[in-house]
Amino acid sequence: MNVAIVGATGYGGIQAVNLLKSNKNYKISYLGGNKSSGTKWSDNFPFINLESDNLIEKISIDRIADKANVALLCLPNGISSTLTRGLLEKGVKVIDLSADYRYKSLDQWKNIYSNEAKKYKRDDDDLCKEAVYGLPEINFNDISKARLIASPGCYPTSALIPLNPFLSQGIIDNEGIVIDSKSGTSGGGREPNQKSLFSECGDGLSAYGLINHRHTSEIEQIASFISGNDIELLFTPHLIPMTRGMHSTIYGRLRDPGLTSSDCRIILENYYRNYSHIRVLPVDIYPSTKWVKNTNEIHLSVKVDTRNGRVIILSVIDNLIKGQTGQAIQNLNLISGLPINNGLEMINHYP
Amino acid sequence: MNVAIVGATGYGGIQAVNLLKSNKNYKISYLGGNKSSGTKWSDNFPFINLESDNLIEKISIDRIADKANVALLCLPNGISSTLTRGLLEKGVKVIDLSADYRYKSLDQWKNIYSNEAKKYKRDDDDLCKEAVYGLPEINFNDISKARLIASPGCYPTSALIPLNPFLSQGIIDNEGIVIDSKSGTSGGGREPNQKSLFSECGDGLSAYGLINHRHTSEIEQIASFISGNDIELLFTPHLIPMTRGMHSTIYGRLRDPGLTSSDCRIILENYYRNYSHIRVLPVDIYPSTKWVKNTNEIHLSVKVDTRNGRVIILSVIDNLIKGQTGQAIQNLNLISGLPINNGLEMINHYP
Amino acid sequence: MNVAIVGATGYGGIQAVNLLKSNKNYKISYLGGNKSSGTKWSDNFPFINLESDNLIEKISIDRIADKANVALLCLPNGISSTLTRGLLEKGVKVIDLSADYRYKSLDQWKNIYSNEAKKYKRDDDDLCKEAVYGLPEINFNDISKARLIASPGCYPTSALIPLNPFLSQGIIDNEGIVIDSKSGTSGGGREPNQKSLFSECGDGLSAYGLINHRHTSEIEQIASFISGNDIELLFTPHLIPMTRGMHSTIYGRLRDPGLTSSDCRIILENYYRNYSHIRVLPVDIYPSTKWVKNTNEIHLSVKVDTRNGRVIILSVIDNLIKGQTGQAIQNLNLISGLPINNGLEMINHYP
Amino acid sequence: MNVAIVGATGYGGIQAVNLLKSNKNYKISYLGGNKSSGTKWSDNFPFINLESDNLIEKISIDRIADKANVALLCLPNGISSTLTRGLLEKGVKVIDLSADYRYKSLDQWKNIYSNEAKKYKRDDDDLCKEAVYGLPEINFNDISKARLIASPGCYPTSALIPLNPFLSQGIIDNEGIVIDSKSGTSGGGREPNQKSLFSECGDGLSAYGLINHRHTSEIEQIASFISGNDIELLFTPHLIPMTRGMHSTIYGRLRDPGLTSSDCRIILENYYRNYSHIRVLPVDIYPSTKWVKNTNEIHLSVKVDTRNGRVIILSVIDNLIKGQTGQAIQNLNLISGLPINNGLEMINHYP
Repeated sequence: MNVAIVGATGYGGIQAVNLLKSNKNYKISYLGGNKSSGTKWSDNFPFINLESDNLIEKISIDRIADKANVALLCLPNGISSTLTRGLLEKGVKVIDLSADYRYKSLDQWKNIYSNEAKKYKRDDDDLCKEAVYGLPEINFNDISKARLIASPGCYPTSALIPLNPFLSQGIIDNEGIVIDSKSGTSGGGREPNQKSLFSECGDGLSAYGLINHRHTSEIEQIASFISGNDIELLFTPHLIPMTRGMHSTIYGRLRDPGLTSSDCRIILENYYRNYSHIRVLPVDIYPSTKWVKNTNEIHLSVKVDTRNGRVIILSVIDNLIKGQTGQAIQNLNLISGLPINNGLEMINHYP
Repeated sequence: MNVAIVGATGYGGIQAVNLLKSNKNYKISYLGGNKSSGTKWSDNFPFINLESDNLIEKISIDRIADKANVALLCLPNGISSTLTRGLLEKGVKVIDLSADYRYKSLDQWKNIYSNEAKKYKRDDDDLCKEAVYGLPEINFNDISKARLIASPGCYPTSALIPLNPFLSQGIIDNEGIVIDSKSGTSGGGREPNQKSLFSECGDGLSAYGLINHRHTSEIEQIASFISGNDIELLFTPHLIPMTRGMHSTIYGRLRDPGLTSSDCRIILENYYRNYSHIRVLPVDIYPSTKWVKNTNEIHLSVKVDTRNGRVIILSVIDNLIKGQTGQAIQNLNLISGLPINNGLEMINHYP
Repeated sequence: MNVAIVGATGYGGIQAVNLLKSNKNYKISYLGGNKSSGTKWSDNFPFINLESDNLIEKISIDRIADKANVALLCLPNGISSTLTRGLLEKGVKVIDLSADYRYKSLDQWKNIYSNEAKKYKRDDDDLCKEAVYGLPEINFNDISKARLIASPGCYPTSALIPLNPFLSQGIIDNEGIVIDSKSGTSGGGREPNQKSLFSECGDGLSAYGLINHRHTSEIEQIASFISGNDIELLFTPHLIPMTRGMHSTIYGRLRDPGLTSSDCRIILENYYRNYSHIRVLPVDIYPSTKWVKNTNEIHLSVKVDTRNGRVIILSVIDNLIKGQTGQAIQNLNLISGLPINNGLEMINHYP
Repeated sequence: MNVAIVGATGYGGIQAVNLLKSNKNYKISYLGGNKSSGTKWSDNFPFINLESDNLIEKISIDRIADKANVALLCLPNGISSTLTRGLLEKGVKVIDLSADYRYKSLDQWKNIYSNEAKKYKRDDDDLCKEAVYGLPEINFNDISKARLIASPGCYPTSALIPLNPFLSQGIIDNEGIVIDSKSGTSGGGREPNQKSLFSECGDGLSAYGLINHRHTSEIEQIASFISGNDIELLFTPHLIPMTRGMHSTIYGRLRDPGLTSSDCRIILENYYRNYSHIRVLPVDIYPSTKWVKNTNEIHLSVKVDTRNGRVIILSVIDNLIKGQTGQAIQNLNLISGLPINNGLEMINHYP
């Protein structure tokens, strides 16, 4: 399987190279970039060996189609939409890590990604409808058969995996769900910007995007799909002074207030018993983001306030792996007919 | 006014020395410690000048009473209860920074601080009832007349100041309140412990004390007092890789779903218009903990989800100042008949 | 004294506002900026009060001359040279925080700041010769009489203050001096750039600019001036994952190998006995950058290897205060006939 | 090969488990600890899977000898000396990660580790003489044949590998060498101590152990052995606010001042051409500790001041891997007749 990594020098691209370069099932056959085109991989990353020290090429549909069967698009929002139809028509499967195909309706995308919509004129509502949302815990079978996968955002991943068993089985109320999420700085990408400077975000903490963060709508769309009802929820992201890691603290109300923490733990564990990358922790053990750093795992913990049937679910992921590229590679494995976690067994070097 | 700082070499004590040493209204007349007794201040802190380089004395009620009119007790939970009655009987006013007198009922304290209750045999329910909870935004007048003040915990301070205008005026529901708080590591104190090692908590994030954290009961007690109803809420603390700072993200439901963010902002601003240390930010401006670092300020911001009348209130404080010693000094000012913020105008050296 | 702060929204400008705004000897009468011109101070920094919420104006020599007696130029290298002659001719004294006037020879500046020299055509060698290097510990009297002051770089400040007593008195060899310096990220400024992103420089450490860093020549010029001999030395800067602070570890060889650590400590202490902002620590006490954070102090410590007469001198400063704006304000005090540390007594809020 | 990990829950032990658990050449057959004895691995580390969830046993020579062919001793200084003779007599090879056998003379150890010498009465000068210093870049063949290996300290590793080619070939002067090293906090171990608290060492930097740090003597002993001359040098360690990583900046004087940076680079590259874990970077590329985090690599860079023939060599390692356990496993590989880097090919997940 020849894989093109498009957008190779951003954090998504770097992870993709690192995770694929020693995987025998895949060959990195193309590296694409814009600003970095014409340079060699080793010029950019003298510390990351790549067997054949590829040149990073200017992004071109034809070149990608010549060289690869699948393209991982690790690009800023909007750009994927300029490449995808061309790639699909030439028989290249597309796993898109941006938000371009995460909504079933192009209009909704245009509404939410309005700045990008001004810049990139899109006319591919058919592809929005065709694309499969690449969260394997929800769409395992559809992913396996897809030619266009919209890999989820990091926040939605960290929220939807813990919510899924509770929402899909009607164990918690659809109303009043609160998702309070904390992300490391690498979620902001590798393009220079003032708010991601060490001096600005180091040794401090702030919330952003209250109510209106773009991922609110992405979470609500999928949560509604899961539960079969329209779900409105509160999602608040926070920027934490750490490079990698994401922690979501999710609050809901049990429909049966008699459920205990132990009951809820069993619900989670049963639901995900076939997923080796999901670890449900013992009651009263709360995970650190450090526990999953540099891995594709998600750790979950759940606790009930027995006075009133409220439930708190915690999740931790590495935002660049299970929250981004690791998940894309799970999708790649599925469309390649390989086990979902093929090549994703990484060591967590604590501390 | 002669002030005794008891527990001088912990973070509470250090802040107290720093905040009082150049204040002309107060004289630091006594420094007490246990492990550090017999050493000089400058042996411990060669970088913090103290005019008369005091000896740190073994903690003694008689010595404190000889030297001071007021004692700031910056001690681990339980120890204050061994000193307070003696000090009060000798005419020394007490501002206690521990949890010993924060509950109106000694039994409740014994229930929640059960480990300390085993170690320190207490029989001072009368003092628990007498003590005034030292949150000036709620108990301004009572504090001014008190001889025993229980200075609040950092988490309760960061949660109760934003909640107070909404709860006391019945603007939000009493049910379903969620307080998701994030604290810097200095809240864990200066005693060595594994979980506060840089290697353990650096570059990562975790929640702790779900449902059962001691401050849940402290917040609920005061929130119930404010609202006039029994309040049960969800409070989740998180440990953040930064030294100072606390951020609380508070979720509630408006009784009048027609209120806008701007309306809620005005509610906050009106309520606290006389408190120069409380800053209510413009709508859509969200504070960083860096904005209040090294100051006694609290910054608030509020945002409404107009689809459903949910409200999010943000607060940031410096956990060691407004969350601890700065607030104790506000209490000290009040019992001394001085303006509440006397000597507390500090510069925030951004970044 | 009316002071113009030019370049108000960078880190230098922010410090200048913070340090001057409550100083009764000075009035901030003008704020200038380019990208931020037309906005108000509070639009940029809602968390820093300024009595009269000044508009930030487009930078203009005439406007500065109308409003101020002194200008603090907190600008990127090269721009000051376009303003200085105009300001001086209109009677405005200039304290320049950039490198534009730090060299006695314009040719040397053009050689070292070659990129800036291409962009800004300079013809002011006379001003280079006139400008006084604003390190008060060396040029106290000349500064007091100057109308143009070149405020030193942060690295040179941290290296020259400790070296000065040893070089000027011939106590150490002129050859073989090594300066190994470590800086926080704020030294890189507030303009977005990839290497200063939290994700790039957090939780890691690297050296840069070996042999050829621009401050090598600045240090060598002043060290040569002090010692009366041409000095070549090794200077290596390192970028440390902390926002503020600078630590220099300086290695030299004693001419009299019989000198002890205590002797060297006395040399430092005697030399600087009149400078209250310089603290010479006891032998075997080594400072943390945290000890001087948010202050204008410099702490020094010295240790001798008695086997071979090698000496190590340590210095710590806050790179944005004594390393930048605090020192500029010391210069401002001197040209205003005020005590050097007027308005610079700040609290270090440990930890 | 059955391996005992003794001191399993410290940072050395955790790395050993992580690095060996999926290596088919070794079986972790025994975990030993003192405070943690009687608990299971998963009680301590619920996030690190171990195939057979071993019980951590009380440390016992007999038990180790029953279960293992080799023991990795990851223990505080002094304790290994109470186990080693017993283990060797029962045929267990010993790789000791402490300093107990790093000196050829027991008296020197007693002199330098005087506190430990008071606590542990040692009489094993013969073993000190027998032990091989486990730096494979110097003692490859001796290690392969040894039954007792003293694995080097992290600082000596980071200094000796870059110095070795220059000292052993007489390229730099033996006099005046300066080693300025910067370490992450995990070097301080997992035992709680005040100076390693996040609040104490976060967002700041300090030097420690000037002249007298224990590793000075360790470096000098080996450097003298390499060069054939008694070497005295200056070594200064600094504590950096990051968890993992070590950076050494080494200053020396070339005997042939005509050598260029490129010449010196070739010297390094030639010398280590057979070691795949050593990467010599292009001239003017300076490594970050992030480049080697979670790997067993060491990256080197070298730069000459052509004005005067001074040379600066940089090295970066992960202090817990090449600086500790990874190196111990290189030793384990050598005594097992396996390739030195067997099982040590780890991914660096940048950033």
